Amino acid sequence: MGATAIRILGIDPGLRNMGWGIIDYAGSRLSYVASGSIHSNSRDELGVRLRRLHEGLARVIDLHAPQEAAVEETFVNRDPQSALKLGQARGIALVVPALAGLPVAEYAANLIKKTVTGTGHAEKAQIALMVRMLLPKCAAFDPQGLAADAADALAIAITHAHHCKTAVVRRA
Amino acid sequence: MGATAIRILGIDPGLRNMGWGIIDYAGSRLSYVASGSIHSNSRDELGVRLRRLHEGLARVIDLHAPQEAAVEETFVNRDPQSALKLGQARGIALVVPALAGLPVAEYAANLIKKTVTGTGHAEKAQIALMVRMLLPKCAAFDPQGLAADAADALAIAITHAHHCKTAVVRRA
Repeated sequence: MGATAIRILGIDPGLRNMGWGIIDYAGSRLSYVASGSIHSNSRDELGVRLRRLHEGLARVIDLHAPQEAAVEETFVNRDPQSALKLGQARGIALVVPALAGLPVAEYAANLIKKTVTGTGHAEKAQIALMVRMLLPKCAAFDPQGLAADAADALAIAITHAHHCKTAVVRRA
Repeated sequence: MGATAIRILGIDPGLRNMGWGIIDYAGSRLSYVASGSIHSNSRDELGVRLRRLHEGLARVIDLHAPQEAAVEETFVNRDPQSALKLGQARGIALVVPALAGLPVAEYAANLIKKTVTGTGHAEKAQIALMVRMLLPKCAAFDPQGLAADAADALAIAITHAHHCKTAVVRRA
């Protein structure tokens, strides 16, 4: 009997674009399930925008039934105003899986980059390239190329698969 | 026939303590409905803490059926890390009423202080004192004194009552 697959949801939090990506992880094998990006309109009120992201993410969880979630630790630069904005989107990224009963892990951006590309200072394009190599099926699903937010979200899911191994083995 | 009452939910967003206060507003009369504070445990994971706030706030809305919501614009100081933290709690404060279909207004902290106390630089104690004077019934409900978060939340609801007058008249 093969190892039990764990379905992981990775989320790249953002107010304008909330990237998401789902993979299955069994033994040491990763496979692509689905990915996408949820958009909010900057002309809408903040409450409406956050509701849009909340409902979109809840639909993704309903549809694909992931068992664990992972969210990127948002990079906070020197501007508290944009940190606040990002925090609001990040609150949604964390709470929606938690409301569905999923454990939610957090990973620093440079750990994600290092796990996927081997270096903590990789560019966005390099991450997308490695995600496509690690999950060849995702290219077939997305002939126009993987959106950057979705690629980042898949990279987060891959990072979780690598770093939660102990937990997965315990349950298998 | 008297003016139709509008029920307003004020929220003072915070990760550790999320203050809430509900008032009815009819013509120029304010009356106290309920108030409280939802706590999250700092030893829990962030997702779990945000879920606790989300569920608590959703229960308040279910129970008291407010028609409009108002949230304080979080003060962001020079520390982006705490702005991010506050942002996460604020995302919950904004999204829960939006999910219930309520319009969500935002007010700057100094406008709230000015509306309730007459000065934009009032202390917390002064705000609580004025809230008790404007809503005498709230003291009866809370013999041990109003918690600061709940008083702030009621001040936000009072501010909304004052500044949404045009909208209320239009609907009355």
